[in-house]
Amino acid sequence: MGLPLDSPFDLHSVFPRGGRNLISDVPGVTVGHVTHSGGDVHTGVTAVLPHQGDWFHEKVIAGCDVINGFGKTAGLMQIDELGTLETPILMTGTLSVGTCLTGMVRYMLDKNPDICSGTGSVNCVVTECNDAALNDARGLHVTEEDVRNAVDSASADFAEGAVGGGAGMTCMGFKGGIGSASRTLELGGKEYVIGGIVMTNFGGPGTFVIGGRHVGEEILREKRKPVRDIGSIILVTATDIPLSARQCRRLSRRAAAALGRVGSTMGTQSGDVSIAFSTANRIPHYSGGAVYELNVLHDDYLDRVFTAAVEALEESVVSALWHAETVSGRKGSRAKGFAEAWKEYDYNKEETDR
Amino acid sequence: MGLPLDSPFDLHSVFPRGGRNLISDVPGVTVGHVTHSGGDVHTGVTAVLPHQGDWFHEKVIAGCDVINGFGKTAGLMQIDELGTLETPILMTGTLSVGTCLTGMVRYMLDKNPDICSGTGSVNCVVTECNDAALNDARGLHVTEEDVRNAVDSASADFAEGAVGGGAGMTCMGFKGGIGSASRTLELGGKEYVIGGIVMTNFGGPGTFVIGGRHVGEEILREKRKPVRDIGSIILVTATDIPLSARQCRRLSRRAAAALGRVGSTMGTQSGDVSIAFSTANRIPHYSGGAVYELNVLHDDYLDRVFTAAVEALEESVVSALWHAETVSGRKGSRAKGFAEAWKEYDYNKEETDR
Amino acid sequence: MGLPLDSPFDLHSVFPRGGRNLISDVPGVTVGHVTHSGGDVHTGVTAVLPHQGDWFHEKVIAGCDVINGFGKTAGLMQIDELGTLETPILMTGTLSVGTCLTGMVRYMLDKNPDICSGTGSVNCVVTECNDAALNDARGLHVTEEDVRNAVDSASADFAEGAVGGGAGMTCMGFKGGIGSASRTLELGGKEYVIGGIVMTNFGGPGTFVIGGRHVGEEILREKRKPVRDIGSIILVTATDIPLSARQCRRLSRRAAAALGRVGSTMGTQSGDVSIAFSTANRIPHYSGGAVYELNVLHDDYLDRVFTAAVEALEESVVSALWHAETVSGRKGSRAKGFAEAWKEYDYNKEETDR
Amino acid sequence: MGLPLDSPFDLHSVFPRGGRNLISDVPGVTVGHVTHSGGDVHTGVTAVLPHQGDWFHEKVIAGCDVINGFGKTAGLMQIDELGTLETPILMTGTLSVGTCLTGMVRYMLDKNPDICSGTGSVNCVVTECNDAALNDARGLHVTEEDVRNAVDSASADFAEGAVGGGAGMTCMGFKGGIGSASRTLELGGKEYVIGGIVMTNFGGPGTFVIGGRHVGEEILREKRKPVRDIGSIILVTATDIPLSARQCRRLSRRAAAALGRVGSTMGTQSGDVSIAFSTANRIPHYSGGAVYELNVLHDDYLDRVFTAAVEALEESVVSALWHAETVSGRKGSRAKGFAEAWKEYDYNKEETDR
Repeated sequence: MGLPLDSPFDLHSVFPRGGRNLISDVPGVTVGHVTHSGGDVHTGVTAVLPHQGDWFHEKVIAGCDVINGFGKTAGLMQIDELGTLETPILMTGTLSVGTCLTGMVRYMLDKNPDICSGTGSVNCVVTECNDAALNDARGLHVTEEDVRNAVDSASADFAEGAVGGGAGMTCMGFKGGIGSASRTLELGGKEYVIGGIVMTNFGGPGTFVIGGRHVGEEILREKRKPVRDIGSIILVTATDIPLSARQCRRLSRRAAAALGRVGSTMGTQSGDVSIAFSTANRIPHYSGGAVYELNVLHDDYLDRVFTAAVEALEESVVSALWHAETVSGRKGSRAKGFAEAWKEYDYNKEETDR
Repeated sequence: MGLPLDSPFDLHSVFPRGGRNLISDVPGVTVGHVTHSGGDVHTGVTAVLPHQGDWFHEKVIAGCDVINGFGKTAGLMQIDELGTLETPILMTGTLSVGTCLTGMVRYMLDKNPDICSGTGSVNCVVTECNDAALNDARGLHVTEEDVRNAVDSASADFAEGAVGGGAGMTCMGFKGGIGSASRTLELGGKEYVIGGIVMTNFGGPGTFVIGGRHVGEEILREKRKPVRDIGSIILVTATDIPLSARQCRRLSRRAAAALGRVGSTMGTQSGDVSIAFSTANRIPHYSGGAVYELNVLHDDYLDRVFTAAVEALEESVVSALWHAETVSGRKGSRAKGFAEAWKEYDYNKEETDR
Repeated sequence: MGLPLDSPFDLHSVFPRGGRNLISDVPGVTVGHVTHSGGDVHTGVTAVLPHQGDWFHEKVIAGCDVINGFGKTAGLMQIDELGTLETPILMTGTLSVGTCLTGMVRYMLDKNPDICSGTGSVNCVVTECNDAALNDARGLHVTEEDVRNAVDSASADFAEGAVGGGAGMTCMGFKGGIGSASRTLELGGKEYVIGGIVMTNFGGPGTFVIGGRHVGEEILREKRKPVRDIGSIILVTATDIPLSARQCRRLSRRAAAALGRVGSTMGTQSGDVSIAFSTANRIPHYSGGAVYELNVLHDDYLDRVFTAAVEALEESVVSALWHAETVSGRKGSRAKGFAEAWKEYDYNKEETDR
Repeated sequence: MGLPLDSPFDLHSVFPRGGRNLISDVPGVTVGHVTHSGGDVHTGVTAVLPHQGDWFHEKVIAGCDVINGFGKTAGLMQIDELGTLETPILMTGTLSVGTCLTGMVRYMLDKNPDICSGTGSVNCVVTECNDAALNDARGLHVTEEDVRNAVDSASADFAEGAVGGGAGMTCMGFKGGIGSASRTLELGGKEYVIGGIVMTNFGGPGTFVIGGRHVGEEILREKRKPVRDIGSIILVTATDIPLSARQCRRLSRRAAAALGRVGSTMGTQSGDVSIAFSTANRIPHYSGGAVYELNVLHDDYLDRVFTAAVEALEESVVSALWHAETVSGRKGSRAKGFAEAWKEYDYNKEETDR
């Protein structure tokens, strides 16, 4: 749902929000979570489904950008080479990438008897951030079954905040997690949607900026001091605009502007990965003939697309923090929910002002 | 000088400014301009000198990033491959890249009798934005002599605004141009400097943001409507921190966060190019022996470096607009200086408030 | 014409040659040369025209790969970003890139009154190798007029060897230059052409391999000693197969296999640049509507395309050397034509055998 | 051991082989295999250890190149960003990447209690080719324990051919597998080693070329017909030459020339990945101070390095085929060992000649 309309913050958006204000406003896109939360364990899996059909045999067009490569995301190489996405995109904790890969492979094998038996293999995309601050990451608590459940439970309505892959994330001194938002735009007389979903685990205490307001510093009373910008962020953009692989790559690169807006300077120890996909064309796995037709947006129309994507991703980040509740994790660690922190701060401020 | 300390804007910086608040706070770095301004002609050349010695035989380490490749910058390929910079970096109008290349080649041939006669050729770096909105770009008014004069007149004190390569640029509905700023930081007990210089020619009317404040919309009364983000920006970062080529590449990528801060969403028709260089090590053209020693900052220390660079580049952009005066150009075109526009706006606002 | 059918060498090709065995077998592609040859001056310009229409307003789709970035080619950044080519590709000597850029800009301005006056600027592609071994490179003998003449004289029939941009090149101990060849192939019941054109200036004495035969060592009696692999190569691939920008990029990367076949190990001081374009789709400069249709080959059919391209490029390299006659250049330098050297060697060998 | 000295083939090498003619000629580098072979199962794991110490806390410098991204290798993004390798490199079957990732993560967690508990996470590098032609890939027969055993059994002496990750691979119509070779070279008066190791699973029947001889066509009597070049290859280069990350990246790109020599045109359905690392410098995980010293080879000396690497990788490919014995796999599939096929062919030829 993104940032609630009655929130005290103004993101200064140009484009209107979609109906749900979620990535699932893009027709066919759904999201599922499996969350492990309790004691020392705060981790999970989030699955972003590009459509509701046969992903492997009807691929969508995609592109990606590695903003900062200090990360372990698997599956990007083939997106860049072939310009297609053929599985859901998973989000999880760093050390669980292997388990999620295998879980996703098994899921795809079950659904597709031809994989590695008549046709080639499958490229599963598993993104990650390091949830070790709150979670017993070394315990490898994510299971292959979690992947199946995350995918199977995917829905157009899904929770944000400390859920799924975002369960154990921390961000700019607060609890991080999963956030999503969307924008609608008109191109050539037709209405389209762009949606974003992010897993936030970056930044240092006090770096959080919303709509130009340094809310992190306000709450934490951290005054303009240099902080370590540690951690990572995964940013996924989906749209029903007919984009080519080259254009999806261009689109994915705009995620960096959204990071700039929320206060990130892309610290060194960060895996900042952006993936963009378009559901407008389906690329068949088996070629019916040598040549097929593709619908492609003229590049002249991309300005609006880029701005709408930056807005959706910016709000996704803010929404991830807004929806994440306070979590107490392993070894006495604790990350305060931003909304809770803001309420306290706001109340105190009013008290003081009175 | 960056944004004056008494300006009405707060960039919310973490790191202190350097002495001049210019890229020339990095020891050895100087900047020279040649400006053609009058009638239909508003163009020129800006030269950024990496040091005051023999650039070709004592190269500095460099890296670069193409944020948006809709541009014509020459010389990046070799920076990426060899990780060195062996000439000044020129900034000019798009159609003058060829002339500046030849001008720089002649300059280097004069200084270095061994180039293409005993040793290899030379890689001249010429960056550009399209100044055709204000300038008679088709007239190709930049000369090879301009290059020589820009380089020879380089100084640690230099003008910002509608000068040099920035003479004919427009940016976010105002007059664009050249801007510069710097930050100092301590790493391992030693003080270093990071400086930025930019040539700004991007964005649409109303997109200008300073320190979170939508000053563009305020002045232009352009209310949150989607605009074309046309044009380009060149961002150069210099430092005396000992960075490797790989680290300079990482540093150059942070320029995108600075763009996010000032309101850019990197529109499609834009050549957004970032170059970063470090003056700390000199790489000899002729190898004295097979192996040499390089001083390199441990990557763990890069967080501060990245944040300081983003701040310097953000202020450089704002400074370019702040210092650019109103220019009337070809065919009745006109770009208002931001400072002038702000003064009018501010005055009117006070009148209204009264 | 590639390697003559009665040459003593067998390239072991799988695909048949095109009618001319030149890149101009791709319908619409033509090539023009301007050559300066005499005394200390051996340089020039070669122009490869992607079609015979309005290049700027009807762009072709393109991709590129920098195999080794120790070079000064201009214009690649925009090919990679936008996936289009909107001018002829020029080939020249390193220090003449600037002059050729300006010459090409002027040519395009003359033909297109809207460039920088109503619409954006133009991306001219100028590739280069360093001809300083034979040519007075420091004299900058190429003129802007040469560019115009090279383009205007372009034809489907054109010379190979020590002509145009290749006039002063040296390659693997022999005279280098311009070479071209083509292959035909069937895809989905339709016949297509792939053509290559190269400018060769790489390798050390003795490294030349033709169809597995170490002809360089044979002639030069250089027995398997490590040599410096100095210099550069430009490889251009054209086809009428409907490829996307992403596929052109993939295609361009196969040039490295052709280099491996002829004996190159891509020495350090080498600008090895590959550009591939497809004439099958035309991308209009002015968008008629938001969305257009593109014909794209299914990636499953690319194997043949890649192999045919490698064969065309391999033969192009061999053909450049085969057609290049002995040249005596500046300061008593001399590069022997390979065909001449082979004839002498072959004659002597027969004498010895007798 | 590479290709035996008494083999009937001449690779025409310039540089002498190392003592073992294996990648383990680079001091500290060892290789271990776990092989599952029998019935429908032909798969396994190969581990390449960069040194015998603490990989995580004393990283080696590395670079990589994706020649063809139709593959699922994990861990490259961080090599490219940070220029370091901090675990062994694993080679396995495509669908086992997840299991190997998790296996390697567990191994590293056991050895390093600080990972994800006091310091950041770990980047495990798992490369793959698709062994589904011979192996019951869908059965996922590789276990996490296999990873541990492959690493723990690593030795300077190791088998080549149908072993480890190469157990189920096929290559150019024959049995593929693991191959290795090395070269020695002198730089600045000091002797160095370059070693290669490959996992071969590419090419079509008849494309195999050894030292210019089309041995594939000879044996298979496949006469110059276009074939599908399906599958992948992993190429790893190790050296004790002091190379920077940028130089390792350059080195890794030369693998494409080796592929060109053995007959590959890098078919579309192929994950061709090259990784190069240098053991000369160790980068400490924990920074002792802000700045450290690095020894770096001057780029002028790289020609020999590149040629030696191409030779080592070329021989590694040939050696993989030479050592691989005939394997009968799942569903009646069978891949003939090249050496066996050659012996039969050679015998028959002699019979015929007689």
